[in-house]
Parts: sequence; structure tokens; C-alpha cells
Amino acid sequence: MTARSSLTIVLAAGEGTRMQSSLPKVLHPVAGQSLLAHVLGAAPKGAGATLAVVIGPDHEAVADEARRVRPDAATFVQRERLGTAHAVLAAREALARGADDLLVVFGDTPLISAETVSRLRAPLKNGAALAVLGFQAADPAGYGRLLVEDGRLVAIREHADATPAERAITLCNAGVMAFDGRRALQLLDRIGNANSKGEYYLVDAVAISRDMGLEAVVIETSEDEVRGINTKGQLAEAEQVMQARLRKAALEAGVTMNAPDTVYLAADTRFGKDVTIEPFVVIGPGVSIADGAVIHSFSHIVQSSIGKNTSVGPFARLRPGTSLGDGAKIGNFVETKAATLEAGVKVNHLSYIGDTHVGAKANIGAGTVTCNYDGFSKHKTEIGEGAFIGTNSSLVAPVKIGAGAYIGSGSVITKDVPDDAMAVERSPQTNREGGARRYRELKTKAKTPKA
Amino acid sequence: MTARSSLTIVLAAGEGTRMQSSLPKVLHPVAGQSLLAHVLGAAPKGAGATLAVVIGPDHEAVADEARRVRPDAATFVQRERLGTAHAVLAAREALARGADDLLVVFGDTPLISAETVSRLRAPLKNGAALAVLGFQAADPAGYGRLLVEDGRLVAIREHADATPAERAITLCNAGVMAFDGRRALQLLDRIGNANSKGEYYLVDAVAISRDMGLEAVVIETSEDEVRGINTKGQLAEAEQVMQARLRKAALEAGVTMNAPDTVYLAADTRFGKDVTIEPFVVIGPGVSIADGAVIHSFSHIVQSSIGKNTSVGPFARLRPGTSLGDGAKIGNFVETKAATLEAGVKVNHLSYIGDTHVGAKANIGAGTVTCNYDGFSKHKTEIGEGAFIGTNSSLVAPVKIGAGAYIGSGSVITKDVPDDAMAVERSPQTNREGGARRYRELKTKAKTPKA
Amino acid sequence: MTARSSLTIVLAAGEGTRMQSSLPKVLHPVAGQSLLAHVLGAAPKGAGATLAVVIGPDHEAVADEARRVRPDAATFVQRERLGTAHAVLAAREALARGADDLLVVFGDTPLISAETVSRLRAPLKNGAALAVLGFQAADPAGYGRLLVEDGRLVAIREHADATPAERAITLCNAGVMAFDGRRALQLLDRIGNANSKGEYYLVDAVAISRDMGLEAVVIETSEDEVRGINTKGQLAEAEQVMQARLRKAALEAGVTMNAPDTVYLAADTRFGKDVTIEPFVVIGPGVSIADGAVIHSFSHIVQSSIGKNTSVGPFARLRPGTSLGDGAKIGNFVETKAATLEAGVKVNHLSYIGDTHVGAKANIGAGTVTCNYDGFSKHKTEIGEGAFIGTNSSLVAPVKIGAGAYIGSGSVITKDVPDDAMAVERSPQTNREGGARRYRELKTKAKTPKA
Repeated sequence: MTARSSLTIVLAAGEGTRMQSSLPKVLHPVAGQSLLAHVLGAAPKGAGATLAVVIGPDHEAVADEARRVRPDAATFVQRERLGTAHAVLAAREALARGADDLLVVFGDTPLISAETVSRLRAPLKNGAALAVLGFQAADPAGYGRLLVEDGRLVAIREHADATPAERAITLCNAGVMAFDGRRALQLLDRIGNANSKGEYYLVDAVAISRDMGLEAVVIETSEDEVRGINTKGQLAEAEQVMQARLRKAALEAGVTMNAPDTVYLAADTRFGKDVTIEPFVVIGPGVSIADGAVIHSFSHIVQSSIGKNTSVGPFARLRPGTSLGDGAKIGNFVETKAATLEAGVKVNHLSYIGDTHVGAKANIGAGTVTCNYDGFSKHKTEIGEGAFIGTNSSLVAPVKIGAGAYIGSGSVITKDVPDDAMAVERSPQTNREGGARRYRELKTKAKTPKA
Repeated sequence: MTARSSLTIVLAAGEGTRMQSSLPKVLHPVAGQSLLAHVLGAAPKGAGATLAVVIGPDHEAVADEARRVRPDAATFVQRERLGTAHAVLAAREALARGADDLLVVFGDTPLISAETVSRLRAPLKNGAALAVLGFQAADPAGYGRLLVEDGRLVAIREHADATPAERAITLCNAGVMAFDGRRALQLLDRIGNANSKGEYYLVDAVAISRDMGLEAVVIETSEDEVRGINTKGQLAEAEQVMQARLRKAALEAGVTMNAPDTVYLAADTRFGKDVTIEPFVVIGPGVSIADGAVIHSFSHIVQSSIGKNTSVGPFARLRPGTSLGDGAKIGNFVETKAATLEAGVKVNHLSYIGDTHVGAKANIGAGTVTCNYDGFSKHKTEIGEGAFIGTNSSLVAPVKIGAGAYIGSGSVITKDVPDDAMAVERSPQTNREGGARRYRELKTKAKTPKA
Repeated sequence: MTARSSLTIVLAAGEGTRMQSSLPKVLHPVAGQSLLAHVLGAAPKGAGATLAVVIGPDHEAVADEARRVRPDAATFVQRERLGTAHAVLAAREALARGADDLLVVFGDTPLISAETVSRLRAPLKNGAALAVLGFQAADPAGYGRLLVEDGRLVAIREHADATPAERAITLCNAGVMAFDGRRALQLLDRIGNANSKGEYYLVDAVAISRDMGLEAVVIETSEDEVRGINTKGQLAEAEQVMQARLRKAALEAGVTMNAPDTVYLAADTRFGKDVTIEPFVVIGPGVSIADGAVIHSFSHIVQSSIGKNTSVGPFARLRPGTSLGDGAKIGNFVETKAATLEAGVKVNHLSYIGDTHVGAKANIGAGTVTCNYDGFSKHKTEIGEGAFIGTNSSLVAPVKIGAGAYIGSGSVITKDVPDDAMAVERSPQTNREGGARRYRELKTKAKTPKA
């Protein structure tokens, strides 16, 4: 981390019409986080680092997301869309406050890393007025070419304006720029709109700095890191790149995944040692998985804390607010939500456990449902340590099952059950001899057409 | 659409022994439709377009499928398998009726498009007697080479008969042909069987047309489009190509899929705006998904209509005849079949809803089962608007739950419930103090070996 | 199979620290079998074939696994890790007994085939003293290069010691070696440890044999087959290669898989004719699937026998000890364990069937649970032929439901039910007119803040 102060301006005002979505473009998720959150995660943080996000009109949700991720973010509305330089100047108030470095990044490039942003700032320390992020394009058509002479960036040539020789250049403009903060406003204010669209283009800062005798340089990175997102197809591609990164990092951290390509992780998934994840698992945001846990196939987990040596799934769904103690076991066709299961709890089959606290080593039988909703409000269920809940039981919340209590199969429990008590809600079983035979005869006759 | 009349003959009589299946080859599915249905979908339709399908003996199921897709299809049985020209002439009766254009296509090339078939007809308008579909083969070994001179097709040379120079040709025969309808029978009847296998080969029509001074031409397409299917491996490859097409089209239509490679679509899947499909979803035939719907991971959907702003899954299975109203919600481990759920209905967990109509805004608790089968017949369940069904309830059909009715948890409902009534089937809960402790002591003693 | 006797020494003593796991490296699974089991499967078997496995200290679990797969395996502990030759000599006792051929293979190369091991032995018959397995490396950096002159292997040059010319060689050492058994000990005992690490390297056997005027040769194989596993990433890659092999073999055997890349098989999965497996299926070890069975999407199957023309899933979990009779049907959200379901049994929805025998053609309703666990022991359930179990029933084991018996919905069955009897455990349904309306009014009032 440099000791220089910085202002990062995130341009997030694009309409994103090609996304064909009512959701603002930068709020679309990749690996469980919005595009904007990824970009904000790459921006400088800590002392001396300020942040401004330029949003479109009526995109208050973008401002909310910016502040959720970075409570210190200032937001500015770009009322008209008159080009990238115009967008930057929407944050003039922040620019006017001054900073050693000005960074301009785009809200729709979620794959950029903090390390790359940091590298881009380095030339400013050495006297450059401007550093532009570049990449070697596999197919440069459509990109602005970076014209470099004697190690200096002399111009950015738009594809349409490029000569055949210039078009052969594959070093292209990624859009991201770092300015010497003392000269940034001066450069930006000189950018004009004397072009066919009448817009103010940030790339013009290069030619202006050259005309002013200031130094501009290029910092290179990979094409993957700077791909912008304009369509649902590009969004899917970015997800693919991000997932590949996350899977590789997890494998390197010792997570066993025999089929990593079938495991979807979130950017914030945390792993202990010796974790195993089987094929076909989806992990959403806010999940931590402790040492020795095994996540079986076809599990879906969001905002949950999974203890050591637990077993989850197959076919488990852990919804937000699930906390599994060490050695707990969640089996197939089980859903949990806002549920704390202490160490050693077992919920092996076909159950719904919501708004519930379960004491250590309790055993929840197949088909158990915590009836947390009465049609009006949600209520809580408390299941004591070592309790045994018989199969197909309904626990009608609010209700408390005592420690060591035993609930008979098929019971609807509406009243609290004391510790060590046995509770049953059931009628006597009646066996009518020959009853099934008579029933079959009746049904068969009913189906036989009358003669 | 051309104003010329057409006869399309689909050759679907192959035994397909390499498929190692009792199912006739052309009935194997790709993207939820039979190979034959895909091919029929690419054939000319509408006024002036007639269709004949040549099937093998004992393959009445193929004829049924042809008529299911195209009720106007005539079918002809090829009693002996004596080559492709022999197969075409099995439809002599259709040929004799005459048409401006004769198209010969193969029932095992499901990737061919209507646009390509249309392009193949174009030369006939300009006087060609014959147009052959060709492709640049990545590996031409085994294919017939198209010998073109001065823009005219002069011969199709089988690989075995080709000279080294001819083998270097990569333009190969895709099998599909278009004939000038006035000359088709004349050409076909001249094809002989003086070859090692004693069979009648359609490709001989090229040499015959040349000998007759008629013009033959080549129309090119991509290799992907004309790949034939002879093995289960090739079937899987065709599925892969088709799925890639369907996913790309869905993304371009604005569907959000963060992991499109894990979503299986059917050829007839229809999407509204701003639909989201998460990873690991299987969509079978006959599914429409309206604006704003979200299909969560691990969902399996067939022949269902999904309303606007609905939420489906994860772990939902919608079987044929499911209709979800706007804003309805189907949660995890829920199965529906022949079920209409009006707007705002919620079935959040672990339920089976079959042969049922559910009124708007009804709430179906976890573990609810509609008992639609009594061992002999299926019966219907009617759940009124705004009803609340408690958890682990069994609704024994035929039964009607009134609007606004409330069913207590764990009830088995065998009689109709009036509007706004509360129905319960339950015994009193009994708590035996210390009962669980005594039970444990008993069980522990029973497990302790006697001294 | 050669008539020559053989001793195969499997080196399985590596610590595998880069796996970052408490599980010994060779016990990690690929396609449902440990790495060691795969390697043992490629070793010579039958008369005259002996086997020794060299394990690390405190790795008794590795010895157990060796004996599980090959009960005749002798195991030897390498107390210190002083190089590959030192590891081989840990089995000196086995070596001293003598064999025509000595094979040295590595416990972490699960992709090697029996055919390759067999090929490696061939030169010994023709007088070679030593045969080394080699492969053309895509990136040879880091591998020992095989220096071949006039068809003979003259040295193995470690990367660090190689000249630029030698580094250009892409033929690399796979590690696997075959020795003429009469000379093996003689060669091995000459290997010294005069090197920087002070270890005994097996590769030195090549130079020694050359110095002794003995012939050493190279047998080539593909790089895929000899990739060793040192990291979780390499483990995942091996799984990918193995799965590709298994899927290809299944397709060639006539299994229909429209999305083979989404089907995970075990090395021992057995298929009948005309089996279909839909996308997203996980099959663990010990599974056989008979003719005409269809495994639907999202199914998870381990150690189960699946009869002819059965239908499994979607969303089915078959756990160990499941046996499905011909024509049986397991539907969605159904779990079975230690359960024999005779021909024609149907368990269509949301059930758990464990420790149970179900007679032919019985029908198990949705939500049925066999309560096999009372908190202390597991008990058995017997369901007779043609029985009908109503929905949401709990069968409290040990319990026997007679043939042709009928269980009413929602019943908890604790006592045996005779053949053809109808058993019900239920209270009368009470409908309180207006009860739901009064309840709503009460709840609404309760939620309204008092003025």
C-alpha cells in the first residue's frame, strides 16, 4: 500500500440496455456479488482512500449497493449521458477536494484485481501524469489501440480512425486510467466534444497530456481481467472466469473437489482444512465451511456457517441464518432457515427446520416440520439437547421441546414438552380384518361397467 | 417462402443397429424432441408443401411420431433396405403426384435448419435439376467428395473410389438433395444397382443428371448442421450442439443464466423478459416461462406454464400439466402434476400437489400431500382462494377445501371443508412426565448384556 | 497373460503433504475408488502374481485398503523416506523370494492400465534387464529425460542436470519400471546415495545396468496414463480423465446419455442394455443397472442393484443396500437404504424407506416414512405384496404390514397389520364453521398496534 492518498471514481451510470433487464447493469451478480461490489473490492481502501461512484438517474439502488459495500462511498448522479469524461466530471465535487492519485474505473469490469489497480498507480509516483491500463487483445477489432513510442503512450486511436498499420496493433485500451491528482482536473476540463456524437471522451486525456508535455504510460494486464459486461452472454462469461479463479484457489487451499467445474462458489466463500465438496453444489454468498466438513452432491447453501466435521446433503438446502455445530449432519431433502443446530445434531431426511434452535445431539426424525408460520407471523421453536423427535412430527411454533424429551412419531405438538418427557399426539390404531379386501372389491365393482 | 410447391421425402427407415437400442433411431430425443421431429421442423410447411416419411417395417411408432408432428404427413414403408434411392422410391405414390421441388432429407440429421433447406431449393428456380448439400469436412475420410467443375457438381466420389487428388478434397456430401420435381422420377428411375452391394444409391443421380446434360450444383453449409447420428456418442454430440444453440439464443433474448452450460433446454422452451435460470436446471418439452420468473438451481420442469414473477425451486419438480399464476412460489422438494396454482399461491416445502386446483394466495404448508390416488383411480382436490393448509396435512381426494379455510397441522382431511371454516383432525397431546427418561433406561437396559 | 511369475511392488509410502489432507494420499478417491485400488487393479493378477505394497509409518489404513482390494497383498513399512530405491528395498523380503519379473509402480498413478503394465513386461522376455515406462511430455520441464541410443535406454537425466540439448528431449520418465527378476536385487543393491539429498534413487538403476552391460529399454505410453497426483488440483484432473474414459465406454456399450459430461460414474458401474441416464446424475461405487432402466436427473446412487425397466428419480437417493426389482419405480425426493423393493413396487414421492423389505407391486404413498430408528437401535419393516400405504404414514419398526393390506393416510402404524386388513390411526375430522374467519380476526387484531 502506498502512502499516497487516492480518489477512485467508479463509472456506473451506463444504462445497460443490451442487458435487456430492468435491473441496473452494475447490480447483476457474478459469483454472488454485484459487478459493482467486485469493482469496489479492487479499489484502494483504508486511510487516504476516498471513493466516488457516478450513477445514472433513477438508479438509487446502485447508490445503495455502493454504500452497502463501502459505507464511505460518495455518489454522484450523471443526469445526461455525454461521454466518459462527462461522467467523471459528475464527481467534480470529489475531484475538487484533491488527492495524490485519481483512479477512474468502470463499474462493469468485475474481474479487475486490486493488484492491477495498485500497479496502475505506480507510474504516478515516478512522475507520470497519466497511466492507462492496456491489454493484448485476441481480436482487437472495435477496441481503441494504444500507440506507444519510446515507452510512452502518445495516443489512443479509436478503431474507426485507425490506419491499417495502427489496426495491426493488438495492445488495446482497457478504459481504466490513473491520473496524477494535481493535474487531473486540469486535463479533464480540457477535453472537448468536437466529435460526431458531441460527447466528452476520457481517452482524449492522452493526446492532451502529450500536448501539455506530460508523460503518459501504459500498464499491461490480461484481457480476461478487463472484459466489460454489456450482454447476458458476457455476464455468463465473466462468471465462468470468476468461478475458474475461485475453484483454483479452493483447490490450492486444499479443498477436495473431484469435479470442480460443477461447483459454484461465491467470492466470499471461506474454507477450513480438509473440506470436501462433491459434484453439483451451489454455494451462495456468506458461507463458511469449517475443517473436515463434507458437502455432498446437489446441495444449495447460502449465508450459513458450517461447523467442523459436519456432513451436508446430498440434496440439502441451507438457507440464510443456518448455523451447524461441529459434527452435525444434515441429510437429504432437508431445508434449514434461521436455524442453529448445535454440535452433533442430526436431521437426516425430509425435514424443514426454520426459526429454530436445536440443542446438541438432538435427533430429528424424517418428515419433521417446524410449523413456524401461522398465516400471519413467524414463531420460534426450541428443541432441547438430546431430544428425539419422531418421524412425521409437526412442531407448531411457538413451542419448546425440553432437553431429553421424546416425541412420538406422527405427533402434532402444540404445547411445550418438559425435559425428559414423552409426548404423543395419536389415536389408537385400528386394524379392520379383511377391510382392504372388501375395499378392493367395492372399488373394482365401481370401475366395472354395468352389464 | 417460395410459391413453388414441394414434396419433402424424409428417409427414416434405417435400422440404427449401432444405437444398440430397441427404440427406432429417429425416435431418440435431442433437446426434448425426436430426431425426426427436428427434421420435420426444418421441412417446408404451409400451402403447397407436402411431406412423405419413409419408415422401416415394424416401425409404426415412427409413423405415429411423424403424424404427431405433421398431421399431413404421408408414410411409406420400405420393405427391404436396398439403398437410399430405393428408399426414396418407396414413396413413389407421392412422387407421382408431382411437385415443383423434391427434397430428400434424412431423419437422423436433427441439426439441419429450415433456412438451409430453403437455400437448397433456390437453384431449382434458376434451372438446376439437382442441388446437393455439401460441407467442408474437418476430417473428410469416409465421406463422399463433391467434385465441382466450373461451379457445377459433376460427380460424388465415394471415399473408397477416390484418387489421392480427390481424397484431398474436403467438400463433402451431406446427403440432403433437392430435385427439380419435373425430372425427379426420371432421374431416380435411372439409378441402377450395378455395384458391389447391389443397392440403389441416391448419389448416382449426380452422374446421371450430368449424362443427361442437366445442371447439378452444390449448396454449402456447416458440418455441424448435417452431422448424422449413428451411435449414442453422436447422439450426445448432437445434443451438445443443439443445447449450445438454444442457450445462446436464450442469452441473446435476455435470459440471465450465470452458468448456461449447466442448463438444459428444450427446442420449444419459451421465455418472457428478464427471466433468470440458475445453474443445474433441466427443462423438458412444452415449457413457457413468463417475465421476471426465477428458476432456481436443481429444478426439473416439463410441460408447464410458469407465470410472471414466479419463483421456482431450488429442488422443484414441475410435471406435466402444471400451471403457475403470477407471483406464485414453488419451493424446495415440491412436486406438482396436473395442478393449477393461481396467482400468489405458495407451496414452499416438501409437498406433493397433484390433480389439484389451488385458488389465488392460498398457502400450502410443508409436508402437505394431496392424496390423489386411492389404489384404483385418480381424484381431484380443490383448494379455495386464500386457504391455509397446515403442515403435514393429507388431503384425501376427491375433496374440496373452501375459500379462506384453515386446516390444522397434521390433519387428514377426508370431508369437504366449507369456506372460512377451520378443520382439524387430531387427538389431544399427552405429555408423560419422565416418560422419555424411563424409555431410555428401558432401552439402555435391553442393550446391556446380562451378567 | 504371460506364464512368467511376477512380483509387483507398489510404492505407497509418500506423505503427500501437498494434498493438505489428513487422509494418506493414495487413499483419496477417483471415480469412487482409492488411487491405490486403481493401481492395484492394473497390477498382474492370478497364478504366479505376487504383490507387495510399501507404506509409510502410521499408515495402517493404506495397508487395510491394499488387503481389501487384494487379500494376498503383503505390506511393508518404509520407516524413513530415503528415496524410491530405498522404498523398493523395504520389500526386500518379498524380493528375496524371487520372481521372473519385478514391477515397480507408484500408488499415486491411478490412470495406468493393466495393458500398459503388461506391455512393460514384454522386453524382459526378450532378454532386457530393465524396462522403463516413458511418455512424450507436453511440457517436459521438471521431468527426467530418457536418453535413448540405438534403441537402448542409456540414462535417465534429471532436469536439473540436463544439458540444453538434453532438455530439448520430450521423452520423459514415468517412473514405472520392470526388472528382470533374477537381476533386480543385484541392481537395486548397487544404487548409492552419493547425491545432494543423500537419497537412493531408482532411476540410477539405468546407469548401473548399462555399466553392467545389461540392456535397458523404453516402453512408451500416453502422458494421461502416468500422471501422478500430488495436489487436489491434480486429483481433480485425474478424475476428469477417468470420467471421460468411463463415459466413453458407457456410450459405446449403448447407454443413452444426452449429457455425458454431467454424469459421474464409478469405475465398477455395470450397465445392461438400453439404459438411459439423464443429465446431473452421480453414481458411486457398487452400482449395477439392468436393461431398460431409466435414471432421471438429479439422482444419487451408491451400492445398489437396479432392476430391469425401472425408473429412478428425478431427485432420488439410493443408498447402500438398495435393491430394486424389475419395473420398480422410485420417484422424487425419495431415499432408500438397506431396502429390497420387489418387482413393480412404486415409491413415487417424498418418502424414506430404510431397513425394509417391500413385496411385489406394493404402492407406497407420498410422505411415507419407515421409522427404523428408535434412538437406540435400527429395526426392520416388512411390507407385504400388493400392500397400499396411504400418504404421510409412519411405519414404526419393527412392524409388519400384511400382503394386500391397506393403510389409511396419515396413520402411525405401531402394531402389525394382517394380510388384507385395513389399518387406520386417525381421529374424526371436525369442521368448525367460521373458525378460520374468527382466527383471522383474532390474529389481525393482535397484530394491530393499540391506539
